[in-house]
Amino acid sequence: MDFWFEFASTYSYPAAMRATALAEAAGVALEYKPFLLGPIFAAQGLKDSPFNVFPEKGRYMWRDLERLCDDYGLPFKRPSRFPQNGLSAARIAFVGAGAAWGPSFVRAVYRANFGEDRDISRIEVLREILEGLSDFTGPVEGVLETATSPDVKLGLREQTERAQALGIFGAPSFVVGREVFWGQDRLEQALRWAKAQNP
Amino acid sequence: MDFWFEFASTYSYPAAMRATALAEAAGVALEYKPFLLGPIFAAQGLKDSPFNVFPEKGRYMWRDLERLCDDYGLPFKRPSRFPQNGLSAARIAFVGAGAAWGPSFVRAVYRANFGEDRDISRIEVLREILEGLSDFTGPVEGVLETATSPDVKLGLREQTERAQALGIFGAPSFVVGREVFWGQDRLEQALRWAKAQNP
Repeated sequence: MDFWFEFASTYSYPAAMRATALAEAAGVALEYKPFLLGPIFAAQGLKDSPFNVFPEKGRYMWRDLERLCDDYGLPFKRPSRFPQNGLSAARIAFVGAGAAWGPSFVRAVYRANFGEDRDISRIEVLREILEGLSDFTGPVEGVLETATSPDVKLGLREQTERAQALGIFGAPSFVVGREVFWGQDRLEQALRWAKAQNP
Repeated sequence: MDFWFEFASTYSYPAAMRATALAEAAGVALEYKPFLLGPIFAAQGLKDSPFNVFPEKGRYMWRDLERLCDDYGLPFKRPSRFPQNGLSAARIAFVGAGAAWGPSFVRAVYRANFGEDRDISRIEVLREILEGLSDFTGPVEGVLETATSPDVKLGLREQTERAQALGIFGAPSFVVGREVFWGQDRLEQALRWAKAQNP
Protein backbone atom coordinates (compact mmCIF):
# COMPACT_ATOMS: atom_id res chain seq x y z
CA MET A 1 0.00 0.00 0.00
CA ASP A 2 1.25 3.46 -0.85
CA PHE A 3 0.95 6.28 1.67
CA TRP A 4 0.81 9.63 -0.12
CA PHE A 5 1.40 12.62 2.12
CA GLU A 6 2.32 16.30 2.08
CA PHE A 7 3.92 17.96 5.09
CA ALA A 8 1.58 20.96 5.02
CA SER A 9 -1.42 18.64 5.34
CA THR A 10 -2.94 18.65 8.81
CA TYR A 11 -4.72 15.30 8.68
CA SER A 12 -1.55 13.66 7.36
CA TYR A 13 -0.19 14.17 10.88
CA PRO A 14 -2.36 11.56 12.67
CA ALA A 15 -2.15 9.38 9.53
CA ALA A 16 1.66 9.42 9.58
CA MET A 17 1.79 8.73 13.30
CA ARG A 18 -0.46 5.67 12.93
CA ALA A 19 0.31 4.29 9.47
CA THR A 20 3.46 2.22 10.02
CA ALA A 21 2.28 0.57 13.24
CA LEU A 22 -1.15 -0.29 11.80
CA ALA A 23 0.34 -1.56 8.53
CA GLU A 24 2.77 -3.78 10.44
CA ALA A 25 -0.07 -5.14 12.57
CA ALA A 26 -2.04 -5.89 9.40
CA GLY A 27 0.97 -7.45 7.65
CA VAL A 28 0.78 -4.90 4.83
CA ALA A 29 3.95 -3.45 3.28
CA LEU A 30 3.77 0.33 3.30
CA GLU A 31 5.55 2.65 0.84
CA TYR A 32 6.01 6.31 1.76
CA LYS A 33 5.23 8.69 -1.12
CA PRO A 34 5.84 12.36 -0.33
CA PHE A 35 4.32 14.73 -2.88
CA LEU A 36 3.31 18.38 -3.19
CA LEU A 37 -0.27 19.60 -2.91
CA GLY A 38 0.51 23.08 -4.27
CA PRO A 39 0.40 22.15 -7.97
CA ILE A 40 -2.62 19.91 -7.37
CA PHE A 41 -4.60 22.62 -5.59
CA ALA A 42 -3.56 25.10 -8.29
CA ALA A 43 -4.96 22.76 -10.95
CA GLN A 44 -8.27 22.84 -9.03
CA GLY A 45 -8.22 26.63 -9.08
CA LEU A 46 -7.26 26.95 -5.40
CA LYS A 47 -4.53 29.43 -4.50
CA ASP A 48 -4.29 28.44 -0.84
CA SER A 49 -5.23 25.56 1.45
CA PRO A 50 -8.99 24.86 1.26
CA PHE A 51 -8.94 25.40 5.04
CA ASN A 52 -7.89 29.00 4.46
CA VAL A 53 -10.12 29.50 1.39
CA PHE A 54 -13.17 28.32 3.41
CA PRO A 55 -12.72 29.78 6.92
CA GLU A 56 -15.66 27.88 8.53
CA LYS A 57 -14.09 24.66 7.33
CA GLY A 58 -10.73 25.79 8.65
CA ARG A 59 -12.08 26.64 12.10
CA TYR A 60 -13.77 23.27 12.25
CA MET A 61 -10.68 21.41 11.05
CA TRP A 62 -8.48 22.70 13.89
CA ARG A 63 -11.00 21.62 16.53
CA ASP A 64 -11.54 18.29 14.78
CA LEU A 65 -7.78 17.67 14.57
CA GLU A 66 -7.41 18.51 18.26
CA ARG A 67 -10.13 16.02 19.20
CA LEU A 68 -8.61 13.35 16.94
CA CYS A 69 -5.14 13.83 18.45
CA ASP A 70 -6.74 13.58 21.89
CA ASP A 71 -8.40 10.30 20.92
CA TYR A 72 -5.13 8.92 19.52
CA GLY A 73 -2.99 10.24 22.38
CA LEU A 74 -0.92 12.47 20.05
CA PRO A 75 0.52 15.82 21.13
CA PHE A 76 -1.22 18.76 19.50
CA LYS A 77 -0.29 22.43 19.40
CA ARG A 78 -1.97 24.58 16.79
CA PRO A 79 0.75 25.89 14.45
CA SER A 80 1.17 29.65 14.52
CA ARG A 81 1.60 29.54 10.73
CA PHE A 82 -0.48 27.45 8.32
CA PRO A 83 0.27 26.03 5.88
CA GLN A 84 4.01 25.75 6.37
CA ASN A 85 6.32 25.31 3.42
CA GLY A 86 7.17 21.62 3.47
CA LEU A 87 9.25 21.51 0.30
CA SER A 88 12.66 20.89 1.91
CA ALA A 89 11.17 18.32 4.26
CA ALA A 90 9.47 16.58 1.32
CA ARG A 91 12.76 16.37 -0.56
CA ILE A 92 14.47 14.79 2.45
CA ALA A 93 11.55 12.38 2.85
CA PHE A 94 11.94 11.51 -0.84
CA VAL A 95 15.61 10.67 -0.20
CA GLY A 96 14.67 8.61 2.84
CA ALA A 97 11.68 6.83 1.29
CA GLY A 98 13.55 3.56 0.86
CA ALA A 99 15.67 3.87 4.00
CA ALA A 100 14.95 2.60 7.51
CA TRP A 101 14.99 6.17 8.88
CA GLY A 102 12.42 7.41 6.34
CA PRO A 103 9.25 6.78 8.35
CA SER A 104 10.78 8.08 11.60
CA PHE A 105 11.86 11.26 9.83
CA VAL A 106 8.33 11.75 8.50
CA ARG A 107 6.80 11.25 11.94
CA ALA A 108 9.33 13.59 13.56
CA VAL A 109 8.59 16.37 11.04
CA TYR A 110 4.83 16.05 11.58
CA ARG A 111 5.30 16.07 15.35
CA ALA A 112 7.48 19.19 15.08
CA ASN A 113 4.86 20.97 12.96
CA PHE A 114 1.59 19.99 14.63
CA GLY A 115 2.69 18.84 18.08
CA GLU A 116 5.37 21.43 18.86
CA ASP A 117 4.70 24.35 16.49
CA ARG A 118 8.22 24.35 15.11
CA ASP A 119 9.12 25.92 11.76
CA ILE A 120 9.65 22.91 9.50
CA SER A 121 10.52 25.08 6.50
CA ARG A 122 13.93 25.82 8.07
CA ILE A 123 16.89 23.62 7.18
CA GLU A 124 18.31 23.99 10.71
CA VAL A 125 15.14 22.48 12.17
CA LEU A 126 15.25 19.61 9.67
CA ARG A 127 18.95 19.05 10.41
CA GLU A 128 18.17 18.84 14.13
CA ILE A 129 15.36 16.38 13.42
CA LEU A 130 17.65 14.14 11.33
CA GLU A 131 20.34 14.27 14.02
CA GLY A 132 17.78 13.27 16.64
CA LEU A 133 16.58 10.12 14.85
CA SER A 134 17.76 6.99 16.67
CA ASP A 135 17.69 4.92 13.46
CA PHE A 136 19.52 7.46 11.30
CA THR A 137 22.96 6.23 10.29
CA GLY A 138 24.14 8.21 7.27
CA PRO A 139 25.91 11.57 7.52
CA VAL A 140 23.30 14.34 7.94
CA GLU A 141 25.09 16.73 5.58
CA GLY A 142 25.15 14.10 2.85
CA VAL A 143 21.40 13.64 3.03
CA LEU A 144 20.77 17.39 3.06
CA GLU A 145 22.98 17.77 0.00
CA THR A 146 21.31 14.92 -1.90
CA ALA A 147 17.93 16.45 -1.05
CA THR A 148 18.76 19.55 -3.05
CA SER A 149 20.23 17.69 -6.03
CA PRO A 150 18.56 18.06 -9.45
CA ASP A 151 17.67 14.35 -9.40
CA VAL A 152 15.70 14.64 -6.18
CA LYS A 153 14.03 17.90 -7.20
CA LEU A 154 12.93 16.29 -10.46
CA GLY A 155 12.00 13.05 -8.71
CA LEU A 156 9.64 14.83 -6.32
CA ARG A 157 8.07 16.78 -9.18
CA GLU A 158 7.51 13.56 -11.12
CA GLN A 159 6.06 11.91 -8.03
CA THR A 160 3.58 14.78 -7.72
CA GLU A 161 2.59 14.26 -11.35
CA ARG A 162 2.05 10.55 -10.62
CA ALA A 163 -0.19 11.50 -7.71
CA GLN A 164 -2.25 13.66 -10.01
CA ALA A 165 -2.44 10.89 -12.62
CA LEU A 166 -3.74 8.53 -9.93
CA GLY A 167 -6.58 10.96 -9.22
CA ILE A 168 -5.14 12.11 -5.89
CA PHE A 169 -6.50 15.54 -4.96
CA GLY A 170 -5.69 15.77 -1.26
CA ALA A 171 -3.58 14.31 1.52
CA PRO A 172 -3.22 11.89 3.05
CA SER A 173 -4.20 9.35 0.43
CA PHE A 174 -3.69 5.61 0.51
CA VAL A 175 -3.45 3.72 -2.75
CA VAL A 176 -3.92 -0.02 -3.22
CA GLY A 177 -3.69 -0.99 -6.88
CA ARG A 178 -6.06 1.43 -8.58
CA GLU A 179 -8.11 2.16 -5.47
CA VAL A 180 -7.56 5.54 -3.83
CA PHE A 181 -8.57 6.13 -0.21
CA TRP A 182 -8.54 9.77 0.82
CA GLY A 183 -8.15 10.99 4.36
CA GLN A 184 -6.71 9.73 7.58
CA ASP A 185 -10.18 8.35 8.37
CA ARG A 186 -9.70 5.80 5.60
CA LEU A 187 -6.44 4.29 6.87
CA GLU A 188 -8.10 1.25 8.43
CA GLN A 189 -10.36 0.65 5.42
CA ALA A 190 -7.42 0.93 3.01
CA LEU A 191 -5.45 -1.59 5.06
CA ARG A 192 -8.40 -4.01 5.05
CA TRP A 193 -8.53 -3.58 1.28
CA ALA A 194 -4.80 -4.19 0.89
CA LYS A 195 -5.02 -7.29 3.05
CA ALA A 196 -7.95 -8.65 1.04
CA GLN A 197 -5.89 -8.31 -2.18
CA ASN A 198 -3.00 -10.35 -0.78
CA PRO A 199 -4.44 -12.57 1.94
CA MET B 1 -27.38 14.77 20.11
CA ASP B 2 -28.62 16.64 17.06
CA PHE B 3 -28.29 15.07 13.62
CA TRP B 4 -28.15 17.79 10.95
CA PHE B 5 -28.74 16.54 7.42
CA GLU B 6 -29.66 17.69 3.93
CA PHE B 7 -31.25 15.32 1.43
CA ALA B 8 -28.91 16.29 -1.40
CA SER B 9 -25.91 15.28 0.70
CA THR B 10 -24.41 11.98 -0.34
CA TYR B 11 -22.62 11.09 2.90
CA SER B 12 -25.80 11.87 4.86
CA TYR B 13 -27.17 8.66 3.32
CA PRO B 14 -25.00 6.17 5.27
CA ALA B 15 -25.21 8.50 8.29
CA ALA B 16 -29.02 8.47 8.25
CA MET B 17 -29.17 4.71 7.77
CA ARG B 18 -26.90 4.15 10.79
CA ALA B 19 -27.67 7.03 13.17
CA THR B 20 -30.83 5.89 14.97
CA ALA B 21 -29.66 2.33 15.59
CA LEU B 22 -26.23 3.43 16.83
CA ALA B 23 -27.71 6.17 19.04
CA GLU B 24 -30.14 3.69 20.58
CA ALA B 25 -27.32 1.24 21.23
CA ALA B 26 -25.34 4.04 22.91
CA GLY B 27 -28.34 5.25 24.91
CA VAL B 28 -28.14 8.72 23.32
CA ALA B 29 -31.32 10.64 22.40
CA LEU B 30 -31.15 11.75 18.78
CA GLU B 31 -32.91 14.78 17.32
CA TYR B 32 -33.37 15.02 13.56
CA LYS B 33 -32.58 18.46 12.15
CA PRO B 34 -33.18 18.83 8.42
CA PHE B 35 -31.64 21.96 6.91
CA LEU B 36 -30.63 23.35 3.53
CA LEU B 37 -27.05 23.45 2.27
CA GLY B 38 -27.83 25.77 -0.64
CA PRO B 39 -27.69 29.04 1.36
CA ILE B 40 -24.68 27.78 3.33
CA PHE B 41 -22.70 26.89 0.20
CA ALA B 42 -23.73 30.21 -1.36
CA ALA B 43 -22.34 32.06 1.68
CA GLN B 44 -19.04 30.25 1.04
CA GLY B 45 -19.09 31.43 -2.57
CA LEU B 46 -20.03 28.00 -3.98
CA LYS B 47 -22.75 27.89 -6.61
CA ASP B 48 -23.01 24.10 -6.74
CA SER B 49 -22.08 21.05 -4.69
CA PRO B 50 -18.33 21.02 -3.99
CA PHE B 51 -18.37 17.57 -5.64
CA ASN B 52 -19.42 19.21 -8.89
CA VAL B 53 -17.19 22.28 -8.46
CA PHE B 54 -14.14 20.00 -7.94
CA PRO B 55 -14.59 17.10 -10.38
CA GLU B 56 -11.67 15.00 -9.04
CA LYS B 57 -13.23 15.16 -5.60
CA GLY B 58 -16.60 14.25 -7.08
CA ARG B 59 -15.25 11.22 -8.94
CA TYR B 60 -13.58 10.05 -5.76
CA MET B 61 -16.67 10.65 -3.63
CA TRP B 62 -18.86 8.33 -5.72
CA ARG B 63 -16.35 5.50 -5.48
CA ASP B 64 -15.81 6.15 -1.77
CA LEU B 65 -19.56 6.17 -1.12
CA GLU B 66 -19.95 2.91 -3.03
CA ARG B 67 -17.24 1.26 -0.93
CA LEU B 68 -18.75 2.62 2.31
CA CYS B 69 -22.22 1.32 1.38
CA ASP B 70 -20.62 -2.03 0.58
CA ASP B 71 -18.98 -2.09 4.01
CA TYR B 72 -22.25 -1.17 5.74
CA GLY B 73 -24.40 -3.48 3.63
CA LEU B 74 -26.45 -0.61 2.20
CA PRO B 75 -27.90 -0.62 -1.32
CA PHE B 76 -26.14 1.82 -3.65
CA LYS B 77 -27.08 3.02 -7.11
CA ARG B 78 -25.39 6.14 -8.37
CA PRO B 79 -28.10 8.78 -8.93
CA SER B 80 -28.53 9.85 -12.54
CA ARG B 81 -28.94 13.43 -11.31
CA PHE B 82 -26.84 15.09 -8.60
CA PRO B 83 -27.61 16.99 -6.49
CA GLN B 84 -31.34 16.44 -6.37
CA ASN B 85 -33.65 19.14 -5.06
CA GLY B 86 -34.50 17.99 -1.55
CA LEU B 87 -36.57 21.00 -0.52
CA SER B 88 -39.98 19.28 -0.40
CA ALA B 89 -38.51 16.25 1.35
CA ALA B 90 -36.80 18.52 3.89
CA ARG B 91 -40.09 20.27 4.66
CA ILE B 92 -41.81 16.94 5.26
CA ALA B 93 -38.90 15.81 7.44
CA PHE B 94 -39.27 19.07 9.36
CA VAL B 95 -42.94 18.24 9.97
CA GLY B 96 -42.02 14.71 11.03
CA ALA B 97 -39.03 15.66 13.20
CA GLY B 98 -40.91 15.09 16.46
CA ALA B 99 -43.03 12.19 15.21
CA ALA B 100 -42.33 8.46 15.37
CA TRP B 101 -42.35 8.22 11.55
CA GLY B 102 -39.77 11.01 11.13
CA PRO B 103 -36.60 8.88 11.12
CA SER B 104 -38.16 6.17 8.91
CA PHE B 105 -39.22 8.83 6.41
CA VAL B 106 -35.69 10.23 6.33
CA ARG B 107 -34.17 6.80 5.78
CA ALA B 108 -36.69 5.96 3.06
CA VAL B 109 -35.94 9.20 1.17
CA TYR B 110 -32.19 8.57 1.31
CA ARG B 111 -32.65 4.98 0.17
CA ALA B 112 -34.83 6.18 -2.72
CA ASN B 113 -32.21 8.75 -3.79
CA PHE B 114 -28.95 6.84 -3.37
CA GLY B 115 -30.07 3.21 -3.28
CA GLU B 116 -32.74 3.24 -6.01
CA ASP B 117 -32.05 6.38 -8.07
CA ARG B 118 -35.59 7.72 -7.66
CA ASP B 119 -36.46 11.39 -8.16
CA ILE B 120 -37.01 12.64 -4.62
CA SER B 121 -37.85 16.17 -5.79
CA ARG B 122 -41.27 14.88 -6.96
CA ILE B 123 -44.22 15.09 -4.59
CA GLU B 124 -45.65 11.84 -6.00
CA VAL B 125 -42.50 9.99 -5.01
CA LEU B 126 -42.60 11.49 -1.51
CA ARG B 127 -46.31 10.63 -1.19
CA GLU B 128 -45.53 7.02 -2.10
CA ILE B 129 -42.71 6.96 0.45
CA LEU B 130 -45.01 8.26 3.22
CA GLU B 131 -47.71 5.75 2.29
CA GLY B 132 -45.16 2.95 2.45
CA LEU B 133 -43.97 3.70 6.00
CA SER B 134 -45.16 1.04 8.43
CA ASP B 135 -45.08 3.49 11.35
CA PHE B 136 -46.89 6.32 9.59
CA THR B 137 -50.36 6.92 11.06
CA GLY B 138 -51.53 10.43 10.10
CA PRO B 139 -53.26 11.19 6.80
CA VAL B 140 -50.66 11.61 4.03
CA GLU B 141 -52.43 14.58 2.43
CA GLY B 142 -52.51 16.40 5.78
CA VAL B 143 -48.73 16.06 6.16
CA LEU B 144 -48.10 17.16 2.57
CA GLU B 145 -50.29 20.22 3.12
CA THR B 146 -48.63 21.14 6.42
CA ALA B 147 -45.26 20.78 4.73
CA THR B 148 -46.06 23.64 2.34
CA SER B 149 -47.53 25.91 5.01
CA PRO B 150 -45.85 29.28 5.70
CA ASP B 151 -44.97 28.12 9.22
CA VAL B 152 -43.01 25.13 7.98
CA LYS B 153 -41.33 27.07 5.17
CA LEU B 154 -40.22 29.69 7.70
CA GLY B 155 -39.31 27.03 10.26
CA LEU B 156 -36.95 25.29 7.85
CA ARG B 157 -35.37 28.60 6.85
CA GLU B 158 -34.80 29.48 10.49
CA GLN B 159 -33.37 26.03 11.16
CA THR B 160 -30.90 26.59 8.32
CA GLU B 161 -29.89 29.89 9.91
CA ARG B 162 -29.37 28.09 13.23
CA ALA B 163 -27.15 25.58 11.45
CA GLN B 164 -25.07 28.41 10.06
CA ALA B 165 -24.87 30.08 13.50
CA LEU B 166 -23.59 26.80 14.95
CA GLY B 167 -20.73 26.83 12.43
CA ILE B 168 -22.18 24.02 10.33
CA PHE B 169 -20.82 24.17 6.77
CA GLY B 170 -21.64 20.71 5.44
CA ALA B 171 -23.75 17.62 5.99
CA PRO B 172 -24.13 15.44 7.83
CA SER B 173 -23.13 17.17 11.05
CA PHE B 174 -23.65 15.97 14.59
CA VAL B 175 -23.89 18.51 17.37
CA VAL B 176 -23.42 17.84 21.07
CA GLY B 177 -23.67 21.03 23.12
CA ARG B 178 -21.27 23.37 21.31
CA GLU B 179 -19.23 20.62 19.69
CA VAL B 180 -19.76 20.09 15.97
CA PHE B 181 -18.76 16.81 14.32
CA TRP B 182 -18.80 16.92 10.53
CA GLY B 183 -19.19 13.91 8.30
CA GLN B 184 -20.65 10.46 8.55
CA ASP B 185 -17.18 9.28 9.61
CA ARG B 186 -17.66 11.17 12.90
CA LEU B 187 -20.93 9.49 13.94
CA GLU B 188 -19.28 7.10 16.38
CA GLN B 189 -17.01 9.78 17.86
CA ALA B 190 -19.95 12.17 18.32
CA LEU B 191 -21.92 9.46 20.10
CA ARG B 192 -18.98 8.74 22.41
CA TRP B 193 -18.82 12.47 23.13
CA ALA B 194 -22.58 12.67 23.84
CA LYS B 195 -22.35 9.69 26.15
CA ALA B 196 -19.41 11.18 28.05
CA GLN B 197 -21.44 14.37 28.68
CA ASN B 198 -24.35 12.42 30.22
CA PRO B 199 -22.95 9.17 31.52
